[in-house]
Amino acid sequence: MLLRMEPLPTQPAPSKVLVQKFGGTSVGDIERIHKVAARIARSVSEGARVVVAVSAMGRSTDQLIALARQVSPRPSRRELDVLMATGEQQTIALLCMALEEVGVRARSFTGWQAGILTDDLHGSARILEVRSGPLLEALGHVDVAVVAGFQGQDARGNLTTLGRGGSDTTAVALAAALGADTCEIYTDTDGIYTTDPHILPGARKLQVIDYEEMLELASLGARVLHARSVWYARRYGVKLHVRSSFDFKEGTYVMEAGNGEGGSMRTGHAVTGVALDMNQNRISIMGVQDRPGVAASLFGMLGQSGISADMIIQGVPGAGDSRQQMAFTINRDLVEDAMHAIRPVLAGTGGSVRADDDIAKLSIVGIAIGSTPGIAGRMFEAVASVGANIEMISTSEVRISVVIGAEHAREALAAVHAAFGLENGGSGQVG
Amino acid sequence: MLLRMEPLPTQPAPSKVLVQKFGGTSVGDIERIHKVAARIARSVSEGARVVVAVSAMGRSTDQLIALARQVSPRPSRRELDVLMATGEQQTIALLCMALEEVGVRARSFTGWQAGILTDDLHGSARILEVRSGPLLEALGHVDVAVVAGFQGQDARGNLTTLGRGGSDTTAVALAAALGADTCEIYTDTDGIYTTDPHILPGARKLQVIDYEEMLELASLGARVLHARSVWYARRYGVKLHVRSSFDFKEGTYVMEAGNGEGGSMRTGHAVTGVALDMNQNRISIMGVQDRPGVAASLFGMLGQSGISADMIIQGVPGAGDSRQQMAFTINRDLVEDAMHAIRPVLAGTGGSVRADDDIAKLSIVGIAIGSTPGIAGRMFEAVASVGANIEMISTSEVRISVVIGAEHAREALAAVHAAFGLENGGSGQVG
Repeated sequence: MLLRMEPLPTQPAPSKVLVQKFGGTSVGDIERIHKVAARIARSVSEGARVVVAVSAMGRSTDQLIALARQVSPRPSRRELDVLMATGEQQTIALLCMALEEVGVRARSFTGWQAGILTDDLHGSARILEVRSGPLLEALGHVDVAVVAGFQGQDARGNLTTLGRGGSDTTAVALAAALGADTCEIYTDTDGIYTTDPHILPGARKLQVIDYEEMLELASLGARVLHARSVWYARRYGVKLHVRSSFDFKEGTYVMEAGNGEGGSMRTGHAVTGVALDMNQNRISIMGVQDRPGVAASLFGMLGQSGISADMIIQGVPGAGDSRQQMAFTINRDLVEDAMHAIRPVLAGTGGSVRADDDIAKLSIVGIAIGSTPGIAGRMFEAVASVGANIEMISTSEVRISVVIGAEHAREALAAVHAAFGLENGGSGQVG
Repeated sequence: MLLRMEPLPTQPAPSKVLVQKFGGTSVGDIERIHKVAARIARSVSEGARVVVAVSAMGRSTDQLIALARQVSPRPSRRELDVLMATGEQQTIALLCMALEEVGVRARSFTGWQAGILTDDLHGSARILEVRSGPLLEALGHVDVAVVAGFQGQDARGNLTTLGRGGSDTTAVALAAALGADTCEIYTDTDGIYTTDPHILPGARKLQVIDYEEMLELASLGARVLHARSVWYARRYGVKLHVRSSFDFKEGTYVMEAGNGEGGSMRTGHAVTGVALDMNQNRISIMGVQDRPGVAASLFGMLGQSGISADMIIQGVPGAGDSRQQMAFTINRDLVEDAMHAIRPVLAGTGGSVRADDDIAKLSIVGIAIGSTPGIAGRMFEAVASVGANIEMISTSEVRISVVIGAEHAREALAAVHAAFGLENGGSGQVG
């Protein structure tokens, strides 16, 4: 990347609070927990007081879900949260033991002990407040407070979980509440890339990415950070440092980069990243009577089922045909629920519904996209160059997405990535 | 047993609170959890509002301890409690899911959610108070409250565990706090026996046993109930009903039986049960200088290490020998710690120490033992009849214990059991 900026500090001033988050892979077994402890000990030896947020070990969350499903096909969401919360609780205890083994004074905190208050939406609760008193008190006595990520309690004392990626959100909320200006997100990749390097080896690691761009990438399925945690970070001005838990190299900073500090606007690149989402399905609805309110009832039912449609198109009916066609994309996991919600509506209006899984959604992201002419044309040209037909399009100020046939997905990704000069050593200029 | 009494009620009046405790074996896998749910559902259908205390599933507590030991040979007790508490938390969630599967409205409570306040002795905390408000509130909305046994929180909000057998104590404390007059303890045996039926097949199930007798049996190693839970039950007047989780037969009631209601005093039996403890070791200390304070420093050091010696004898030194001998018994698990505590004392006083594990402690228990002449003689006679030499003796109002060679243990047990007419169909009278 062509970014030019002063090196960012890697450690805060002594006795400043540093927040570090370690995901499930980083604490996947006892050996890795010891490694994480050694890394935290290094930060402590450099003078930091550290607050750590951790996930459940490796696949233990999935194992707990499987256990619940053995008991009940549709387990109570409240009780599922009670079960899930044990995963991180085990990690905090083990990590504190490992820290004490290397002479670091540590104390564990479950979500509720750390004062993390959420709403009562079990399974995907939002953090409303962090009552940081107990943590601050503990940091007067110990070097490290280890907090269970992903969990909290609601106003009535019920355990809640924040949903996938929730540990990132916990870390950001802790950083905001404790006045830490950087929150280090340790993960199994060493930063944010222009696109998924597993799919496109030419992808390049970014030094800085703007919150807005990261938000779009996260909602497009980049698994490194969850959108909600980025949203929190932006809202509370917490700088994220996404880096590898296996080495000490700088990773990628997620921060306010649009106003001259860095990011795509400063570099002259309109496009910061390209995302490919192969987990979308297209739901097509055909032969529905063209009368007012049909779309409203359809999307109303979907909304009631908690399903957000992503891209939506309403086709132009053929001449003399008053029966319209519409299509939208949703995450593959939601197809069954969506069908369940739509069919009763169609029973009243006529028409049929179909789901296609042979599609892919390709997106470009950059905070200057909306203000840079010619970006869309350049993207469509690159897609066309590999013979892919664009079936749906959606745009925002910071993103352009197209739906294409799944068979062209990787080729189109590579062509678009190259068209915007994002590959390693690339230097293409836009606009 | 010759007890004659009116049949005890097996269910409380409708809408009375019934407390049921299910141990780790009863909830050992998903299938068993479903069976427990079905049993609770039956109590609900009979009109009871049920509060259930549960243990961790099967061997999961041991697995968690093993995990901790992988991290640290001497893990922090505070963090060990945080880890251990996840075991029961998983059970409460899964059991609630299973209850909802059979149409029973249920809500889970961790120890702290159930208002169980303890002191801060991690690993063996005592319950100080149960703030039953949340449970009572919940019972207005659901049929069953499922509480994590074995755990609570201290005054500062730290998680604590009650130690082995703690789930029984939780159940009794809940019964006391909620005004339930019976607490059902479901286990893998169908009651309390005159002695361990695995060792002596002629052992007989007791219909009633007095708290005092049960306390003695529990402290002698009867694993069905933990001494502390019996102590709580006696203190708060909670009747315990120890019964099998695999059938619906009556088990054994643990209750006030000494004042004419039942128990050994009423039946004319002075002895209710015989216990054999093969897990004791004898620690012998020889050649210690006979000067004031030696015993005090020895047992002082043991006490500081948290070790209670059980039977203690101080030998008569040989003529002209000012070096004395003493011996005591302790649980086998504690031998290493005891040696560690004793050796520094001996370094100052001279002398040597030895541990023998080829001993057994045989005890008779009955609330009338202290007031019935001839009991001790009859016991010693029975022991002698199998050729066993009595090496140590200790007595209390309700118990007589002897230490004999391990090789005679089972024969002596059978002889004593028969001498007091305790065998199935037996009718011996004492005193």
